[in-house]
Amino acid sequence: MGTEESLTSAMENMSVSSEVAQAKYSRRVLIKSIIKRPDKGQGLFGQSVVVGGWVKTSRAHGGITFLEVNDGSCFDNLQVLVNGEVFSLAQLTPTGTCVMVEGELTQPPEGKEQKVELKLTKVLEVGTVDPRKYPIAKTYLPLEHLRSYVHLRARTNTISVVARIRNALAYATHTFFQNHGFNYIQTPIITTSDCEGAGEMFQVTTLFSEADKLARDLKESPPPTEADMEASKLLVKDKGQRVSDLKTNKADKASIGAAVSELQKAKDQLLKLEERFKLKPGLPEKDGKIDFSHDFFARQAFLTVSGQLQVETYACALSSVYTFGPTFRAENSHTSRHLAEFWMVEPEIAFADLEDDMNCAEDYVKFLCQWLLDNCLDDMKFIADKIDKTAIDRLQKIVSAPFARITYTEAVQRLEKVTDKKFDSKVEWGIDLASEHERYLTEVIYEKPVIVYNYPKMIKAFYMRLNEDNKTVAAMDVLVPKVGELIGGSQREERLEVIEKRIEDMGLPREPYEWYLDLRRFGTVKHCGFGLGFDRMVLFATGLENIRDAIPFPRYPGKADL
Amino acid sequence: MGTEESLTSAMENMSVSSEVAQAKYSRRVLIKSIIKRPDKGQGLFGQSVVVGGWVKTSRAHGGITFLEVNDGSCFDNLQVLVNGEVFSLAQLTPTGTCVMVEGELTQPPEGKEQKVELKLTKVLEVGTVDPRKYPIAKTYLPLEHLRSYVHLRARTNTISVVARIRNALAYATHTFFQNHGFNYIQTPIITTSDCEGAGEMFQVTTLFSEADKLARDLKESPPPTEADMEASKLLVKDKGQRVSDLKTNKADKASIGAAVSELQKAKDQLLKLEERFKLKPGLPEKDGKIDFSHDFFARQAFLTVSGQLQVETYACALSSVYTFGPTFRAENSHTSRHLAEFWMVEPEIAFADLEDDMNCAEDYVKFLCQWLLDNCLDDMKFIADKIDKTAIDRLQKIVSAPFARITYTEAVQRLEKVTDKKFDSKVEWGIDLASEHERYLTEVIYEKPVIVYNYPKMIKAFYMRLNEDNKTVAAMDVLVPKVGELIGGSQREERLEVIEKRIEDMGLPREPYEWYLDLRRFGTVKHCGFGLGFDRMVLFATGLENIRDAIPFPRYPGKADL
Repeated sequence: MGTEESLTSAMENMSVSSEVAQAKYSRRVLIKSIIKRPDKGQGLFGQSVVVGGWVKTSRAHGGITFLEVNDGSCFDNLQVLVNGEVFSLAQLTPTGTCVMVEGELTQPPEGKEQKVELKLTKVLEVGTVDPRKYPIAKTYLPLEHLRSYVHLRARTNTISVVARIRNALAYATHTFFQNHGFNYIQTPIITTSDCEGAGEMFQVTTLFSEADKLARDLKESPPPTEADMEASKLLVKDKGQRVSDLKTNKADKASIGAAVSELQKAKDQLLKLEERFKLKPGLPEKDGKIDFSHDFFARQAFLTVSGQLQVETYACALSSVYTFGPTFRAENSHTSRHLAEFWMVEPEIAFADLEDDMNCAEDYVKFLCQWLLDNCLDDMKFIADKIDKTAIDRLQKIVSAPFARITYTEAVQRLEKVTDKKFDSKVEWGIDLASEHERYLTEVIYEKPVIVYNYPKMIKAFYMRLNEDNKTVAAMDVLVPKVGELIGGSQREERLEVIEKRIEDMGLPREPYEWYLDLRRFGTVKHCGFGLGFDRMVLFATGLENIRDAIPFPRYPGKADL
Repeated sequence: MGTEESLTSAMENMSVSSEVAQAKYSRRVLIKSIIKRPDKGQGLFGQSVVVGGWVKTSRAHGGITFLEVNDGSCFDNLQVLVNGEVFSLAQLTPTGTCVMVEGELTQPPEGKEQKVELKLTKVLEVGTVDPRKYPIAKTYLPLEHLRSYVHLRARTNTISVVARIRNALAYATHTFFQNHGFNYIQTPIITTSDCEGAGEMFQVTTLFSEADKLARDLKESPPPTEADMEASKLLVKDKGQRVSDLKTNKADKASIGAAVSELQKAKDQLLKLEERFKLKPGLPEKDGKIDFSHDFFARQAFLTVSGQLQVETYACALSSVYTFGPTFRAENSHTSRHLAEFWMVEPEIAFADLEDDMNCAEDYVKFLCQWLLDNCLDDMKFIADKIDKTAIDRLQKIVSAPFARITYTEAVQRLEKVTDKKFDSKVEWGIDLASEHERYLTEVIYEKPVIVYNYPKMIKAFYMRLNEDNKTVAAMDVLVPKVGELIGGSQREERLEVIEKRIEDMGLPREPYEWYLDLRRFGTVKHCGFGLGFDRMVLFATGLENIRDAIPFPRYPGKADL
């Protein structure tokens, strides 16, 4: 797998070495590579190293100042001991101060948790902080407050933990699919297709900026007036008359030539004026409506709500593919589970049916959970300590037992029998299960992830494969505790006549889907796929309450900071 | 690294096994797992397997029909032998037909290139093709022609090769940065910041769809007329009079109460009418301009041109980070090197300077090239055979020698001395090097990648670190043969006063950058980063002429298919 050793294996090698690994592309060593060695850094005593990071807290004790320094490479801080004579302490101690320091790795007093600390010998660089002005100087700030400081909040424990977990989940995602021979396909963000025919979409346009440009242009050089036009037309007429006169008088060729050339100039000038005369400030219109044929893509274009339809074109060629990218919904939703910009993982598998789809979804979610247990245990411990006690337990449970699998019909029957809880919306066959139903199934009835499959066709999209009962489609949702729906997927309808009829029955326009039908016309194949809401997976893993804290830069109605 | 074995190691295990690995999440085995075993499938003779794929070509010979079947898992096809009696041959042979078949793996006659072939025993599924209607039935079609069929072109050799190479480069990118302790940060796509203050941006809006909704609403239930308003006002007046009369006449409480309640109803009704009376079809306006405070994000929002500024906020917390996502330019550019939607890889490193930056960029590009040599040799051989003879050579050269590194000043001096070529634009100190200059440097003078650094400050962005000469900034570009600029990067200005002055000198507004300045105000750190144009890297690796073939769904002026 390439020429480079992984950081993990490099660090394993370090355990037998007494050298500390230099961080690549930087003058300092990563704190992780000191304290996360198998020997917790004990093999490095006496070595001089350069570290850099931000001061989390500081305290003075017995004439020595202790700085807790964190560089984000892992959850834990390195304790740095400063003798007051070395450097102006007042500059080093405020929370948020950035330091790059040289020092000697030494053994802390017995009984301390950390196994190595750094005795400062030289301060190389300092980025100071005025604690009276620093917006996140306090050690504890509510997450909601931090959302006003998306440019600084990554320096807090919680948000940096979330960032590392999100990073781990993203790389685990690629690794899972690559290991199973899936090709990563980057589906388009700007699209002229609407996957579901339902989602509210953001429109992408250059018409406003073009109108601004035009307005500036017209202001700088105003368009010709009626009088200008008249004058220009008169000039053409005069010049034409002049040519005609010269010809009548049989003037010499040179004179006629000169006059013709002047006429041509006047005509060109008139043409230009006529063009500018037509310019009107504002958006281009046609028949009283905005004319999108003047927009960048010569038609209306939108931000994608899903890469599924497009990635299917690659599944019908490369067999196993996936897309992983941003998707968008312009819903005016203010819940703690929705974002206007969110990330989706969407695999698509040819020569596969709904059962394959469920197997893949279950294995993938388990792989993600195991990956976090293997690679992010420190961060998960913080989560379990501060945010959600059951977080690690939950991951372990997911990994250790098979998911429940029930049909939609069974799910409805189970929910109809529930007597200990009153649902806001009534359960009956045919309804789209509400979040309260989904959570009850996974949290109370099964106490583990549940895959519900074979949904009524009337509540599902046209592309889902019609079952033989002619009432249900081969769709499935994966429901998990804490979050509810984490994954939605289906086997796709591969039969041309059936999908054509579905499009017609649902009253969808046919033309926009002709390319999609081509996949069924030419070498059609049984295939299936699903979409995992990546930010919801982060929510599930971290136990956070609000999805706005699960993504670095959340977008929702009225908010798009930075 | 998680619980799953990688495909590679699974395949290595297979070489000592006589079992063929079942493809996960599918009923068939991947063709790759048969013919790409170290023994090229020879250990599998006699086994019965199910494979699926699309027929590339077919031919009949000696009563047997040979189908070349490809499933996209690797470049090579599996040859399937069909005895005419088994199935209607006419349905199986057209190019593009999808087949899932069972058969026995057997040894081909001596002297053939492939070491294993499949003797068909049973046809499980067929997706037929009518060759008269199939738009890509011909074996050779120009790439430009295929751009009209982005939903089918992945089935051609060239585009599927490009897809696998692109996939490999993406996973190599994540692996490189993860191995070096970088965290992947998903920066926002919708942004209210403009990274360079220069790029032409796409605007994101819901105003058009809101206006449509309003128009439909007003059509269904037209707003009140002037007469309606008058009537409603009159009613309020009457009801008020009635209350007043009852009070004057000292009527009983119940009657007065009833009258007051009627008055309130009339007032409420009037309020509602007044609101609807104000509704005007069209876009919301204020002072003759479009009022973006009514837009989804309560202000103008755009598609990002770079994630750099945002990812810096995470570098100033987690030290080593990168973003890898789509970026956008609304330039009316029709060249073979530009897309309106393209993908960028942007690492950002704290505690690092320009030299670290150049080291990282060089190692990263080398890692990508080595990865292709290690993992995509079959695909690269096709490239070398059909598209660009020097493609494999070029990768090997990149890997084996250090990049040249010269200052901008040196680059200009070298170019000024050039006598064997006349440049379209004159070379002199201070110019932004044109593509012709960049390509001459890397292709003719150095014949390898060149990193040019320390550019004049007046042609570079405000965030680049000012050098001590006060004339140049710590910027660098990586130029490579075939493509020209592949990477642009810089050390970022970490000194608050210096960057404030740069913003002022360049006439940029200060307010939009306050959050960016906060990174310098609070715990500032030396840091650097760069951006690699991912689609250009695909172009470089594949030797393709046009970037529209390097991305699955190209977007450019007038074009956004699917």
